[in-house]
Amino acid sequence: MLKGIHHLGYAVEDLEEAARFYRENFGAKVADAEVVEAQGVATAMVRVGDSRIELLQPTRPDSPVGKFLEKRGQGFHHTAFEVDDIEAELKDLASRVELIDETPRNGAEGTRTAFVHPKSTFGVLIELVELCPARADRKGRRHGH
Amino acid sequence: MLKGIHHLGYAVEDLEEAARFYRENFGAKVADAEVVEAQGVATAMVRVGDSRIELLQPTRPDSPVGKFLEKRGQGFHHTAFEVDDIEAELKDLASRVELIDETPRNGAEGTRTAFVHPKSTFGVLIELVELCPARADRKGRRHGH
Repeated sequence: MLKGIHHLGYAVEDLEEAARFYRENFGAKVADAEVVEAQGVATAMVRVGDSRIELLQPTRPDSPVGKFLEKRGQGFHHTAFEVDDIEAELKDLASRVELIDETPRNGAEGTRTAFVHPKSTFGVLIELVELCPARADRKGRRHGH
Repeated sequence: MLKGIHHLGYAVEDLEEAARFYRENFGAKVADAEVVEAQGVATAMVRVGDSRIELLQPTRPDSPVGKFLEKRGQGFHHTAFEVDDIEAELKDLASRVELIDETPRNGAEGTRTAFVHPKSTFGVLIELVELCPARADRKGRRHGH
């Protein structure tokens, strides 16, 4: 079960310029940029009211976001939904949609995330995000591990 | 000032099929479809948790969403932000971004809406939505008209 949209991801050519645009024109608050070298991307979370937009600038042209920019140009990249239990969600979805990630990967700020292929979802790349980083530990303790 | 995301718009080829997909796989609640003939589009609002996705199926190929589908295929179409006062927002933005609508148009459920051109906003089509349908009347009464 999806709990609602956690953030939108937008691919941009210049993170600073896009962040400044949202700050100056839409009163957005912008977090410091963070480089995720494994994904070849620099990101900054922009807060507009109570919503979040993750700006994504490739750090190299052959990264997923670099290839996306070359093919589609700047714009919407993905919709991220918050889930309580990402493993349960992936298990539930596996037989019905095409998953990009069969198991979660580690995301920014201790989150765990997985992507669903846009072929399955009417052309929209969907990210699932489980927020609570201490969940696995708590589960372990509860079961005496 | 934008208050947060009101909904996302997704262009789809088959509204019923897409709505069923979100209902069956993501526990979404789907409102009845509504045809807006002036825009050449049938829409249905899908509620995922506390977020809304507006599915958009063209009723004719030469409508804006019909042309979008032909050019870009199915997928994300626009991000709609809620605003308190759409005229004030448009006046504020007019000198800084390219507006598609200089004055608001009437939207679904008594809303007033206007679009900002994606050229100005890093490739993302932005819709502004003012929710309160009685606002203009109240203003009129307050000023004795």
